[in-house]
Amino acid sequence: MSQELELFDAVFPELVTFLTEKGLKDPEIADASKWFKEVIEYNVSYGKKNRGISVITSYILLVPNSSDEELHIARVLGWCIEWLQAFFLVADDIMDASSMRRGRPCWYKRKNVNNIAINDSFYMEACIYQILKHYCKGKPYYVDMMELFHETTMQTVHGQCLDLITAPTDGSVDFSLFTVERYDAIVKWKTAFYSFYLPVAVAFYMAGITDEKSHSHAKVILLKMGHFFQVQDDYLDCYGDPQVIGKVGTDIEDNKCSWLVVTALGRVNEEQRQILKENYGRQDSDKVAQIKLLYKDLEMERLYREYEDSSYYQLLTLIDQLNGSLNKDIFINFAKKIYKRNR
Amino acid sequence: MSQELELFDAVFPELVTFLTEKGLKDPEIADASKWFKEVIEYNVSYGKKNRGISVITSYILLVPNSSDEELHIARVLGWCIEWLQAFFLVADDIMDASSMRRGRPCWYKRKNVNNIAINDSFYMEACIYQILKHYCKGKPYYVDMMELFHETTMQTVHGQCLDLITAPTDGSVDFSLFTVERYDAIVKWKTAFYSFYLPVAVAFYMAGITDEKSHSHAKVILLKMGHFFQVQDDYLDCYGDPQVIGKVGTDIEDNKCSWLVVTALGRVNEEQRQILKENYGRQDSDKVAQIKLLYKDLEMERLYREYEDSSYYQLLTLIDQLNGSLNKDIFINFAKKIYKRNR
Repeated sequence: MSQELELFDAVFPELVTFLTEKGLKDPEIADASKWFKEVIEYNVSYGKKNRGISVITSYILLVPNSSDEELHIARVLGWCIEWLQAFFLVADDIMDASSMRRGRPCWYKRKNVNNIAINDSFYMEACIYQILKHYCKGKPYYVDMMELFHETTMQTVHGQCLDLITAPTDGSVDFSLFTVERYDAIVKWKTAFYSFYLPVAVAFYMAGITDEKSHSHAKVILLKMGHFFQVQDDYLDCYGDPQVIGKVGTDIEDNKCSWLVVTALGRVNEEQRQILKENYGRQDSDKVAQIKLLYKDLEMERLYREYEDSSYYQLLTLIDQLNGSLNKDIFINFAKKIYKRNR
Repeated sequence: MSQELELFDAVFPELVTFLTEKGLKDPEIADASKWFKEVIEYNVSYGKKNRGISVITSYILLVPNSSDEELHIARVLGWCIEWLQAFFLVADDIMDASSMRRGRPCWYKRKNVNNIAINDSFYMEACIYQILKHYCKGKPYYVDMMELFHETTMQTVHGQCLDLITAPTDGSVDFSLFTVERYDAIVKWKTAFYSFYLPVAVAFYMAGITDEKSHSHAKVILLKMGHFFQVQDDYLDCYGDPQVIGKVGTDIEDNKCSWLVVTALGRVNEEQRQILKENYGRQDSDKVAQIKLLYKDLEMERLYREYEDSSYYQLLTLIDQLNGSLNKDIFINFAKKIYKRNR
């Protein structure tokens, strides 16, 4: 695993060179290419890279005797997912007014960047298709791959919209929108498609698995896994160690439709509901502390552990029920990586 | 021409329905689809639509006996350029801190929108590929069309980056970057590729013209036309009637690398350069007035008229020198539309 991370990381400089080399030598756009080189070096390579590496581990399980050339392309396509993620995160940080990401200041917070970060996010998205064209044009999966990234982008944009209109930052707090249904929809569209279905779908298309049935079976399991992952993420935003997760959680002050608040809303009495109403979604550390106190009274940590255990069990059951040609190891491998993580 | 505008406009509702119909019926994402419907209705259909219509007029000149089905697709692809433009403009307005666009408040200035507009711009870009897949999949030009939109996006993003790093909005004024070479590069990459080469290239691919030589000949002429257009645009930003151009120009206060300031810098004496230095790029109407006074002393309006005449003449000469199979009418038709416009 850590060996694969090394092999994966070794591909990054090749991609940076491919993307910027020509522009850096062109006097017309050299300054832009220099800027963009910094953009990708700052934003693309500092994540956990779980999504990108999942492409390769899945692909190897599907095609155990693949050529070095195809393995290299699998790594390149894994990086495309990291590029996609960087595109979303740079923009999300502006929209959420975040300050830290992966243990460092958000890109838009850097001197001389600010709103230029919007254009930088466009750039990182555009890189994906430049990479696909260079490495996959002529392969049987080229068109499927472009369409997959297009569709996943559209899904994620829908999820981000749901998230933003559900949690307005204008100070108004409207818990009527914080339903389990809305929570599930945000998770599925904003995170699960691109983080869980996409890496496996990329490996499928590379391996020549293009039938609708295989993709839809895989999707059911992977979206369930994505839900599990996001609940963890919400939990860690409140209870994780900032040193370990690389950011200071702000879901409470940002009025986020988090698993914690949605679950709390299902359990509060009238008095507790009033406390939630008066303190949630405000940029005020005293009010955040009030919410955390309420979460303690509601035993949110215990509820989370219960959810975690039952969800993992359900997931394994679902994988176990898979029949047909799909390789179960892909899904078990994926599930192990996200279970009981702390970052 | 106005008849084509009617036919073109008639296609818009079909595209809005195609893009939003399914989502509006899906309880998971209906609220997002409702939001996005408003996004495209507010942002996509209110422009002059010259770029979109150029696809059809060019295509008809290339394939005079085209079927109704192909004509319909040409209009749909014309709209894809309008979608691309809306994607860029919504984001540009945030980055430039503009207030008005096409005679109405910028989208991000609307109540409840703000930075959600960033995600909305992503949405409009993603629409392009959903439209291409639905209307062109299976056509011989499907892949060329996707690659063309990808490449044009990358070019425009480079131009926008050059523009933003050349004209910082932090109050610093550095005229050393305001060179003719930089100006020419910004115009070419930020505007000319997507506004002038793209519509004709779309028509070429639809008509089966895919050879590198035809595309590069067309590109030379169209990029020249794009330069001409942008100089006009810069002129109108300062001298155009806001009622007619639909916005109040802010190039001077935004420290923009405009044709006017670049040309002025080539003609000022030391005293006038000092006036430029002290007044350009400041959000202060008195300082803007000082710049306009200096432009008057430098006879910028006369210089512009001279440029306009000579550039138009050069353009016609270039078109006249075209030989081979390319249809000159496409270029003449295009040139006529932009010459001596007032909006």
